[in-house]
Amino acid sequence: MKITKALCASAVLALLVAGNVQAEEKAFKVVVNAYDTNIPELNIEGVTVKNIRAFNVLNEPETIAVHKGAKVKITVENKSPISEGFSIDEYGIQEVIKAGETKTISFVADKAGAFTIWCQLHPKNIHLPGTLNVIE
Amino acid sequence: MKITKALCASAVLALLVAGNVQAEEKAFKVVVNAYDTNIPELNIEGVTVKNIRAFNVLNEPETIAVHKGAKVKITVENKSPISEGFSIDEYGIQEVIKAGETKTISFVADKAGAFTIWCQLHPKNIHLPGTLNVIE
Amino acid sequence: MKITKALCASAVLALLVAGNVQAEEKAFKVVVNAYDTNIPELNIEGVTVKNIRAFNVLNEPETIAVHKGAKVKITVENKSPISEGFSIDEYGIQEVIKAGETKTISFVADKAGAFTIWCQLHPKNIHLPGTLNVIE
Repeated sequence: MKITKALCASAVLALLVAGNVQAEEKAFKVVVNAYDTNIPELNIEGVTVKNIRAFNVLNEPETIAVHKGAKVKITVENKSPISEGFSIDEYGIQEVIKAGETKTISFVADKAGAFTIWCQLHPKNIHLPGTLNVIE
Repeated sequence: MKITKALCASAVLALLVAGNVQAEEKAFKVVVNAYDTNIPELNIEGVTVKNIRAFNVLNEPETIAVHKGAKVKITVENKSPISEGFSIDEYGIQEVIKAGETKTISFVADKAGAFTIWCQLHPKNIHLPGTLNVIE
Repeated sequence: MKITKALCASAVLALLVAGNVQAEEKAFKVVVNAYDTNIPELNIEGVTVKNIRAFNVLNEPETIAVHKGAKVKITVENKSPISEGFSIDEYGIQEVIKAGETKTISFVADKAGAFTIWCQLHPKNIHLPGTLNVIE
């Protein structure tokens, strides 16, 4: 009996721990940055790079992953010089964050799957989208 | 004994639930979109943006995450005006989806790791690749 | 009693398996590639594509996901013709990998969250960043 009880106790302890992990809030910080990159023709380590120009807005980090059921809190800081959007359609999230401002978005990740995090204000190949992965 | 039995029952219930989660199919929808973006020099919120042009094809969402052992079903809809590819080398997946068509790709995620989802028809910096994360 | 013991045994077996998964090393391979893409105006499947040029460096795969507590080993091979960086600030990782070289980065994923994998040598919209997802 001793062993039996010990085994069961350890099993239940593990379940309580697992439950607790699900319950606590998962916090993420995303910074939105705009990059206007101009590189003249130059030679790097003996390799000639032609002149290039690229303009993009990036969410850093781009991808967020949680287990289904997690309470999620995403703090989005917009370091771009203009307003940027932060949308996750399947979770009904559509925020506009002004230049220099920070917004906090909270939700329960109750839908499993992979969902696009995108800016509803700009073309997706200028402000590159990210992904919210809710794993079952 | 009552308590012991109750504890064990709850433990086993949890294991059954966990087993079931592994068994059921994980369904994902990916849309392939082409973006040809031309922005003239303009002023947004007092910020002058130089004229830019970018052309990209994006998978939306870009990243997919599952636990190892999951049955995965990815439905890929090609909204680009031309054929696009969808490949995951480590899983032997290499599909061509014609403009306007939809294909369903099914497999068991039996290899853990991070695997590139890419288009075998176009340069990777034009059609940006994504990732399949199979988590152990 | 028989049943009770059987139930407990199966529960404990599952816990041991789970423990083992956490203990073993998770290995990832990332290849850094540079793409200088020039596409003249051409007609593909009846669609006219204007001439485009894009230059990017990509990490393939871009995103890595592990459970918290995992021992992580990332082997990074630089196939770009010049040195590339591989940094994860929150884990104190900042490597430079010379052209043609391979470096192995090992750490324990003891901080949960989403962390940007980026190149400290080049603009983030030229060498596109990725994400390390540490899931609790």
